[in-house]
Amino acid sequence: MQTITKVALDAMGGDNAPAEIVKGAVDAVSSREDIKVFLVGQEDVVREELQKYPYPQERIEVVDAPEVIEMAEPPVQAIRKKKQSSLVVGMNMVKQREADAFVSAGSSGAVLVGGQTIVGRIRGIKRPPLAPIIPTETGISLLIDCGANVDARPEHLLQFAKMGSVYMENVVGIKNPRVAIVNIGAEEEKGNALVKETFPLLKECEDINFVGSIEAREIPHGGADVIVCEAFVGNVILKLYEGLSSTLIGVIKAGLMSNLKSKIGAALALPSLKKTLKAFDASQYGGAPLLGLNGLVVKTHGSSRAKEITNSIYQCVTFREENINEIIKERVADSKNNEEE
Amino acid sequence: MQTITKVALDAMGGDNAPAEIVKGAVDAVSSREDIKVFLVGQEDVVREELQKYPYPQERIEVVDAPEVIEMAEPPVQAIRKKKQSSLVVGMNMVKQREADAFVSAGSSGAVLVGGQTIVGRIRGIKRPPLAPIIPTETGISLLIDCGANVDARPEHLLQFAKMGSVYMENVVGIKNPRVAIVNIGAEEEKGNALVKETFPLLKECEDINFVGSIEAREIPHGGADVIVCEAFVGNVILKLYEGLSSTLIGVIKAGLMSNLKSKIGAALALPSLKKTLKAFDASQYGGAPLLGLNGLVVKTHGSSRAKEITNSIYQCVTFREENINEIIKERVADSKNNEEE
Repeated sequence: MQTITKVALDAMGGDNAPAEIVKGAVDAVSSREDIKVFLVGQEDVVREELQKYPYPQERIEVVDAPEVIEMAEPPVQAIRKKKQSSLVVGMNMVKQREADAFVSAGSSGAVLVGGQTIVGRIRGIKRPPLAPIIPTETGISLLIDCGANVDARPEHLLQFAKMGSVYMENVVGIKNPRVAIVNIGAEEEKGNALVKETFPLLKECEDINFVGSIEAREIPHGGADVIVCEAFVGNVILKLYEGLSSTLIGVIKAGLMSNLKSKIGAALALPSLKKTLKAFDASQYGGAPLLGLNGLVVKTHGSSRAKEITNSIYQCVTFREENINEIIKERVADSKNNEEE
Repeated sequence: MQTITKVALDAMGGDNAPAEIVKGAVDAVSSREDIKVFLVGQEDVVREELQKYPYPQERIEVVDAPEVIEMAEPPVQAIRKKKQSSLVVGMNMVKQREADAFVSAGSSGAVLVGGQTIVGRIRGIKRPPLAPIIPTETGISLLIDCGANVDARPEHLLQFAKMGSVYMENVVGIKNPRVAIVNIGAEEEKGNALVKETFPLLKECEDINFVGSIEAREIPHGGADVIVCEAFVGNVILKLYEGLSSTLIGVIKAGLMSNLKSKIGAALALPSLKKTLKAFDASQYGGAPLLGLNGLVVKTHGSSRAKEITNSIYQCVTFREENINEIIKERVADSKNNEEE
């Protein structure tokens, strides 16, 4: 008998909720039989969307969560007050082991706070990093941490490097992934205080394939598989990636539309161009896992459409099947140093 | 009588030295009469390049500097040992007021160290920031600091914001420039410890037009004119800007060349496309000034060609004519707080 991965999905989170979220769930269970989705949200709203599609009834279940957390709400307060929100209900399902994973396109802050306070950290994991996949010239890289923990310490970054390696090797399938730390120069003596303290910890760590510093310039060229940085820098990298890609693509389109000759050229070139640029479309890689928790929490883009939701659900299946959390417990969790638990 | 701006130019620094550097100097003095360039470098090498061009003899002078600082040399040591290098000789000319400015495409580290130790800070300026211009969808922005001072403090960032405003208003010509601090969210309570401490200082400062936080995503969209950040983050932004732009343009070109139809399209569209992408070419904006020094030091890209050198020389003229350092002394230098002098 096939084992089923159970995913609690935040039907109310993100710019395109509930329509695209529900569609993503239907697509996932329709394509694969090893998935069950709990659509967590305002029951009548969710059911109205759901009735638009045919789907295997036994593999989508609607879980009522009448409250909604708004994007602008202060996360800690929202989670404390709105016990009947989709985010709190869904995360509690992971905590109670009723679901293997929780996926949300809702407020990043609320997902990060909820992951830590409701789902909770694996014993011995000091901080749970948010680790999105970013496209590069040669494939993809994992950027870790991207906004979960500001003002992190060197021992946190060491755990990020280890968890990132486990994820890239076992979920994404990159053997012996190259780990690098974001720095402002290639030499070991360069960097700010945090990087200088972290560098030797990474260098001495035998569990990872540490290749040294990486300058931001080399990230889009695919200079490493696991890009380690503290959350502020990671967030800047991620958001600049998004902003600059969309700006450049916009600028190029405007250039192509600027006169008749170039318009004709554009019409001819567009199919190839679209195909190429698709490799730089983050949505095909699913969401960003929040690693090191007792269960899996995945944050997808606020602008997620059905495809990204579906891919994020698939990602949960691999995560569970590959026993990522067991590997993290064995290889990363620090049994001797639990002062922050 | 016209006043002349005297620029000491590092003829030996950068990937394309001395040929492109010398050409840039010749182009500058040939186009404008208010410039004199001291070409600082190995005299025979420089003269050999120079004799290829006609130029007004009285406005280019070769200053012999037999030693060369290599890109990989540790900056502090290089400056201490190589007193006869183009960088040390040129910076000493600024210190002695024989030149108004020094321009180099050589080692960033050496330029930053030399600027501080040889040219020296304006009294009351705590740290001299490196402030490159970056292209945006709507024009250009100043990114300050971009690598000169890691682990900066809030009072340093406040001075960066003020100096950046002076530069954008008086050199670039943007009236009442919008100043923003790089942050990981738009709300005032977001950020790391440094940003949280700096935010109120910027908010209370009456000399600048502070518009709040800017997320990295908004930088390419032209969300602010002066982008304030500490050096590590600024360096990451600058280098990711360069890396991602070149990667995306490369990916797009490859896409256009992928089949016959798109090749024909590309041939038709290319002139317009080139024109558009030119706006995203950093070289037209000259080099990055190191602000707050007793004189002007400009660092241009290591890959600078003649055009960027010429533009950097023009930039020195504006800097001098607009009395930027007098304005910085008046408005930014802190007479009460000189503990770091």
